[in-house]
Amino acid sequence: MAAKINSNFGNVSESYLFAEVARLVAEFQKANPDRKVIRMGIGDVTRPLAKTVVKAMQDAAAEQGKTETFHGYGPEQGYDFLKDSIRKYYADYGVTLDPDEIFISDGAKSDCGNILNIFAEDNLVLVPDPVYPVYVDTNTMDGRRVIFAEANEANGFLPMPEDIKTDEVPDIIYLCSPNNPTGAVYDHSQLKVWVDYANAHGSVILFDAAYECFVTGDMPHSIFEIEGAKTCAIEICSFSKTAGFTGTRCGYTVVPLDLVRDGRSLNKMWLRRQCTKFNGTAYIVQRGAAAVFTPEGEKEVKENIDYYRGNAKIMTDTMDKLGIFYTGGKNSPYVWFKCPNGMESWEFFRVLLNELGIVGTPGAGFGPAGKNFFRLTAFSTREATEEAMKKFCEYFR
Amino acid sequence: MAAKINSNFGNVSESYLFAEVARLVAEFQKANPDRKVIRMGIGDVTRPLAKTVVKAMQDAAAEQGKTETFHGYGPEQGYDFLKDSIRKYYADYGVTLDPDEIFISDGAKSDCGNILNIFAEDNLVLVPDPVYPVYVDTNTMDGRRVIFAEANEANGFLPMPEDIKTDEVPDIIYLCSPNNPTGAVYDHSQLKVWVDYANAHGSVILFDAAYECFVTGDMPHSIFEIEGAKTCAIEICSFSKTAGFTGTRCGYTVVPLDLVRDGRSLNKMWLRRQCTKFNGTAYIVQRGAAAVFTPEGEKEVKENIDYYRGNAKIMTDTMDKLGIFYTGGKNSPYVWFKCPNGMESWEFFRVLLNELGIVGTPGAGFGPAGKNFFRLTAFSTREATEEAMKKFCEYFR
Repeated sequence: MAAKINSNFGNVSESYLFAEVARLVAEFQKANPDRKVIRMGIGDVTRPLAKTVVKAMQDAAAEQGKTETFHGYGPEQGYDFLKDSIRKYYADYGVTLDPDEIFISDGAKSDCGNILNIFAEDNLVLVPDPVYPVYVDTNTMDGRRVIFAEANEANGFLPMPEDIKTDEVPDIIYLCSPNNPTGAVYDHSQLKVWVDYANAHGSVILFDAAYECFVTGDMPHSIFEIEGAKTCAIEICSFSKTAGFTGTRCGYTVVPLDLVRDGRSLNKMWLRRQCTKFNGTAYIVQRGAAAVFTPEGEKEVKENIDYYRGNAKIMTDTMDKLGIFYTGGKNSPYVWFKCPNGMESWEFFRVLLNELGIVGTPGAGFGPAGKNFFRLTAFSTREATEEAMKKFCEYFR
Repeated sequence: MAAKINSNFGNVSESYLFAEVARLVAEFQKANPDRKVIRMGIGDVTRPLAKTVVKAMQDAAAEQGKTETFHGYGPEQGYDFLKDSIRKYYADYGVTLDPDEIFISDGAKSDCGNILNIFAEDNLVLVPDPVYPVYVDTNTMDGRRVIFAEANEANGFLPMPEDIKTDEVPDIIYLCSPNNPTGAVYDHSQLKVWVDYANAHGSVILFDAAYECFVTGDMPHSIFEIEGAKTCAIEICSFSKTAGFTGTRCGYTVVPLDLVRDGRSLNKMWLRRQCTKFNGTAYIVQRGAAAVFTPEGEKEVKENIDYYRGNAKIMTDTMDKLGIFYTGGKNSPYVWFKCPNGMESWEFFRVLLNELGIVGTPGAGFGPAGKNFFRLTAFSTREATEEAMKKFCEYFR
């Protein structure tokens, strides 16, 4: 006998999509040390943290330096002060949450992987194609079978139950709205169809709301705005895009108290998972996250989001001008467009990098249905976005 | 079809040991609002963070507030500046680590649970009895079978391969030294026996070194001080006890490049796991952790550790005086002792709480072999420790 590895790891590619893109860019820069590169590939932000957030974290660090105000182990589920702020934020959209339904974490990516701990391995998983690669990779690592719902020009990259590619009924359904990578957003009536479908079949929806802060107008921020969602959905959210926390690490997951499968509360199971395999998010970071919801914090954070929205507008204006099909950019920091001249996405990646010095993400990296599409992000600086779109326009006009 | 839960969760108790202790204490305080309670139960620290660490985090927060110095997504494995500091720390004990062997995380508890992702579920797991409950619970959640090596007075609570209770050879072996809860420490020759055993059988040792900062004299801080460990061991460590990071959250795991099973590199598998399900530890927190290794940081951190060592000395002096058998306290913040008067540990818990207002942790909570033992921690204040031991001495003399 010897220790046996999880052989499912043999079914995921050794390199994560964004690591592969980074490798190719590094290769390019080594070969062309004097060429400038504009990065619109990875979904990382560039605006600094809001002043209010920085101040809150500095004050919290000072607290940690004094015996009287020192915080050791906190609750694994997060501090009430942050949960209360999140509850108020949801209340603005008409969603009532119990404090016990909110679990603070170090980010949506962690929760997205770890939530699968509470599900059996023989669940059938549905993911949209194209999609954030983490959904497929994490399930593949557990040996779950994954089927796809194709997103395409015909359905506006918003697949519905009728777009499921087999006759099977999935047990776990991933929805991401505003979507990564397509930027497409489900409206209330579309989400209602999914919620009704899940409730009818006992499926559980894993709803990724990481980009909800970009939603405008009457579009839903949360799946829990939909009647019936509390018996079929878990929502995963993050401060990464809302408040620039990509390097500061805070997110949260909402597991409703009414969500029961096989006679067990998924909320209690997730609590047990987190208490056993997680020790809470740093006190300092939670104080920073709570500052996002203060009046001053909200104002500063909105300025940053508006800045990125301005970048997205420059990008969608360019696509409009060139008559290129795209989704996103309106309620999302992502613009997802059809590669010009019928190019495939990895080919287009090389053209964009070699000819224009622009880094984006090939649609094929998000799934087969992304083969001829490409993702650019609005997270660069205004200057870089303008420069990139000018070059883009000149080259592809 | 409907979503199916992970039924292995039915095999772990709903409440985590320390949550249960907290509940009983809250109940006691509600019933006796004017009684003072001295907390020596959970392994949480009470000394504030070192000034150097606070300053480093405040400076890092300021960096996050400026475009030019803002840090977004960092490497999932952690920043080189922190890995370099850790490598130097290990070099002091004669251990050479490659930067790629070190993975920074948000704490040992996370890594301890998550590392199991890379192992198959049909591995046979060996844990000492008694032991930190997370080892058993995390494996039970995955459906792995767990066998025990009994720690007892005869082996000084340091079980060796001959103490394995069945004839089976385990695939995964947990060792924790200095041990939680017993405070017992393996010497080099004892660890060498375990390393040779693991290499002979292809087992993998998961070595929990979370308390290594309490080690004195010639005892090993790391399993990698032992020849042959790089082909059979993974080490998990933390800043929680070293630098009071229980509420600040930083740890690291060392997966050697030479560790291969089923023809696959466990280091590469862990990298893939972390890149897929984790997004790195907060930049601010990593800066704080790196400050621990500066000359000023080392000095301040040592003062705190010496403070806790002083508390442990008061506790072991008390046990010596009363002639009570104990382990730990010398190279560990834990004192593990035999309950007086042949009491069982939950009974003793109630006596200690009701009669003396002292909270400890019942040995039975760590496994059947802890039935007549009890854990007290040195992490209280000096005054509380002195007061508790005075009462203890008077009551049990």
